[in-house]
Amino acid sequence: MSKTNPGNFFEDFYVGQILHHATPKTVTSGDVALYGGLFGTRFAVQSSIEFARSLGYPTAPIDDLLTFHIVFGKTVPDISLNAVANLGYADCRFLVPVYPGDTLQATSEVIGLKQNSNGQTGIVYVRSKGFNQQGNCVLEYVRWVMVQKKDASSPAPKAVVPELPAAIAPKDLAQLPDGIRFDDYNTDLSGSTYKWGDYSIGEKINHVDGMTIEEADHMMAARAFQNTARVHFDQFQATTGRFKRRLIYGGHIISLARALSFNGLANAWSVAGVNAGKHANPCFAGDTIYAWSEVLDKAETPLRDDVGLMRVRTFGVKDQPVAEFPGEMQGKYAPNVVLDIDYWVRIPR
Amino acid sequence: MSKTNPGNFFEDFYVGQILHHATPKTVTSGDVALYGGLFGTRFAVQSSIEFARSLGYPTAPIDDLLTFHIVFGKTVPDISLNAVANLGYADCRFLVPVYPGDTLQATSEVIGLKQNSNGQTGIVYVRSKGFNQQGNCVLEYVRWVMVQKKDASSPAPKAVVPELPAAIAPKDLAQLPDGIRFDDYNTDLSGSTYKWGDYSIGEKINHVDGMTIEEADHMMAARAFQNTARVHFDQFQATTGRFKRRLIYGGHIISLARALSFNGLANAWSVAGVNAGKHANPCFAGDTIYAWSEVLDKAETPLRDDVGLMRVRTFGVKDQPVAEFPGEMQGKYAPNVVLDIDYWVRIPR
Amino acid sequence: MSKTNPGNFFEDFYVGQILHHATPKTVTSGDVALYGGLFGTRFAVQSSIEFARSLGYPTAPIDDLLTFHIVFGKTVPDISLNAVANLGYADCRFLVPVYPGDTLQATSEVIGLKQNSNGQTGIVYVRSKGFNQQGNCVLEYVRWVMVQKKDASSPAPKAVVPELPAAIAPKDLAQLPDGIRFDDYNTDLSGSTYKWGDYSIGEKINHVDGMTIEEADHMMAARAFQNTARVHFDQFQATTGRFKRRLIYGGHIISLARALSFNGLANAWSVAGVNAGKHANPCFAGDTIYAWSEVLDKAETPLRDDVGLMRVRTFGVKDQPVAEFPGEMQGKYAPNVVLDIDYWVRIPR
Repeated sequence: MSKTNPGNFFEDFYVGQILHHATPKTVTSGDVALYGGLFGTRFAVQSSIEFARSLGYPTAPIDDLLTFHIVFGKTVPDISLNAVANLGYADCRFLVPVYPGDTLQATSEVIGLKQNSNGQTGIVYVRSKGFNQQGNCVLEYVRWVMVQKKDASSPAPKAVVPELPAAIAPKDLAQLPDGIRFDDYNTDLSGSTYKWGDYSIGEKINHVDGMTIEEADHMMAARAFQNTARVHFDQFQATTGRFKRRLIYGGHIISLARALSFNGLANAWSVAGVNAGKHANPCFAGDTIYAWSEVLDKAETPLRDDVGLMRVRTFGVKDQPVAEFPGEMQGKYAPNVVLDIDYWVRIPR
Repeated sequence: MSKTNPGNFFEDFYVGQILHHATPKTVTSGDVALYGGLFGTRFAVQSSIEFARSLGYPTAPIDDLLTFHIVFGKTVPDISLNAVANLGYADCRFLVPVYPGDTLQATSEVIGLKQNSNGQTGIVYVRSKGFNQQGNCVLEYVRWVMVQKKDASSPAPKAVVPELPAAIAPKDLAQLPDGIRFDDYNTDLSGSTYKWGDYSIGEKINHVDGMTIEEADHMMAARAFQNTARVHFDQFQATTGRFKRRLIYGGHIISLARALSFNGLANAWSVAGVNAGKHANPCFAGDTIYAWSEVLDKAETPLRDDVGLMRVRTFGVKDQPVAEFPGEMQGKYAPNVVLDIDYWVRIPR
Repeated sequence: MSKTNPGNFFEDFYVGQILHHATPKTVTSGDVALYGGLFGTRFAVQSSIEFARSLGYPTAPIDDLLTFHIVFGKTVPDISLNAVANLGYADCRFLVPVYPGDTLQATSEVIGLKQNSNGQTGIVYVRSKGFNQQGNCVLEYVRWVMVQKKDASSPAPKAVVPELPAAIAPKDLAQLPDGIRFDDYNTDLSGSTYKWGDYSIGEKINHVDGMTIEEADHMMAARAFQNTARVHFDQFQATTGRFKRRLIYGGHIISLARALSFNGLANAWSVAGVNAGKHANPCFAGDTIYAWSEVLDKAETPLRDDVGLMRVRTFGVKDQPVAEFPGEMQGKYAPNVVLDIDYWVRIPR
């Protein structure tokens, strides 16, 4: 009996199944520093304990996307080791801030299954949740992946496709913790004077800067997130594969686009939720990532007037500056688009 | 008089000599995060403060191999700056867990010397020890290296070759600290249900995954360990040398193989000792490392029934998946074998 | 109205202008670990909490150059986003030690302006200061950069060129904090027996070792310092530019040279000030950096006899070992010289 984890195949999943993921991880200031070195993030709340405290945080929270990547990494050995493709995300909500010293663990529930017509693969829908050491759910999200069947002749399960919101309603996003106030928010330190009231629906922002990715960068990030998907790490096998290259973890591009978006969205310190995310094209070492954003919507925050919500769609584009806003047209992406992510940010008013 | 450390040559060593190594280093959660980013280690005890505490640890200990590399790095400027080859390790015992916040320093005692017949080089045997800030020895090991003579005409010292155990007897391995118990060990979180009783002597495990090494990875690791051996860092000089490439620190391969071995040995959280280690072939950036292990022996832990010992031999192999277990035959290594390490791990029963 | 920071152009600056820079950053042990992994620094005071405490420090201070890079990084979006060239540094003084947990923020005052005769660019002189969370100035320095004009036809400002000291007088350097004493300084642990009295004015030291730089290294460093200068990160744009390559942040070379200088200056744990610094040639990934130093001067430390000051000039040289001390002759640099830095170090007596 092999001691090696072969990963789950499509027929190993059933609706209602709960998977308890290994390895719990304590997030430390070391992880924060490494995340900073890998992505160059500059949001003041996460960067400065003093700034965070001046707003009522007990200390500087970690980047929401770092929480996402750590939770995501835990799900890989159980959910997507035999995945053909990561198809999408929905209903991703950041519920409780995570601080250095917190320990994260994760579970997933299978909420949908649908065999593909080729009989070789099927789509698995999971709702994954990350928990801190108090047992509070800090993050939950749905993702769906195409997973290989072990045996094409095994019978198809009853198709169950979950209903998912196209966008999260503002009232369904988490509230900020008690005691946090943005009335004295310092825009010299945050890097921009533009607040919620300064953005218009439909406004497009060219984030201008570009970041070239090295193999060492994306592998270090994925290892730090304890993400074990083989396609990111093994050039020897990749050489005989479809792309001939190591594939960059899609979340790496999300974090790069988010860090680039500081230049234009410097006060949007918090990701409240992700409505949808799509990796439109694969990325490889040597690619230079640019990003631009469109403001899709604005909403007031329930019960408070110092912070607003802004729905933003950010496109990641490779090897092409984005002054002309290459995006999606009639359901087709412009050639160099690699990321299309639709999310709610919090921003002071 | 040059202020630069020229390193010691063969004739600078004498049996009984004690070398006090610079630079003491406080190990922090930053080092742990960087180690995680470099190697992708996933053992739950080291990854999670909460998991470690649930077993009775005061906090999460650092990876045993991180301790090894830090201690090893300190010995380089005094022992192996003029080394031609690192020949072997023996009797390596991890004695006391190391925690973030501990400060490590190191000494070595010369325990053997043997000039080679060519008169150009000699073998130096040292017993190196790492100490924490309480003065407790956390690690000791013997290594022997071939070192250049400064002057081929200088007389050979009396040959002294230490007797070294082929394998450490279980009774000579350190006990776990008081208060640590594995009765409630959570195998969901640890990543595997396989415990001591599930492994058989002679069993072979293909760790499946592969990891490609970049120049930036191995240099960052060696710098983090304050390892100053020039061959790892200087491409300009390497270009005119034997390999034309920067040589990867052998310990880098040990840590990669150990991290890969999680897939098959997820509960073997602790390295109790290393019986023998050999770098069978040099490694360079671009190599993809695979690993497989054979269970050589099993032993009960003196005085406790919740944890057992398992003697494992792990082979690191480059650019060749290891489903057919390429290893050693009649004293010769299969062509792509780069590492052969024989060690005791602790694993819950 | 674009939300993206276009950076300041020459005509946006005026003498007396104060710029408050974003993003404050809490320096952590994670940053220290990353700095160690990137540069391989080995000074015992910064490496070991225990060593630092034995001298009277409350804990291990961070490397002075890490403080410099963090403060420098903050100034980039406001000062040098539209810079053509970084021309020089002067009067750089490290005033208060920075410890993990401290939060740094920065301001700059424009102290000089001089339009170039071509009417396209001008030189901006700023005095930048870094502050800790108590409001203490931890570092100040002057730098001057050549910045593009937005509009060549805009009128030249009145030329103001500040008077700057060619070298900082020892009496103008900061004192060590109260309670720090070097009487029991341990030279086994520090890595060298050479103290202040052992160095002679005019002495040249070959630091011997070489370090090859990878793209991943210098980009990770610059991102960790939150330095946003585009030339370091964007290969796509660089391909059509002057160098065809990403340019390495000059401070990266300073830190490499400083780390290499340990081999010869192991006890020079503290940079008291920088008199002048010049990046003589650009550096790119693949370059191997060597360093050598000349002792320019020695001075007693006001009011104490356990520590002395030594004025050192360190040259960084690429792709050429430095046994013959390639430097400056009649105002011209030898071809491979990349760095010329003149600074005061503290060293025990």
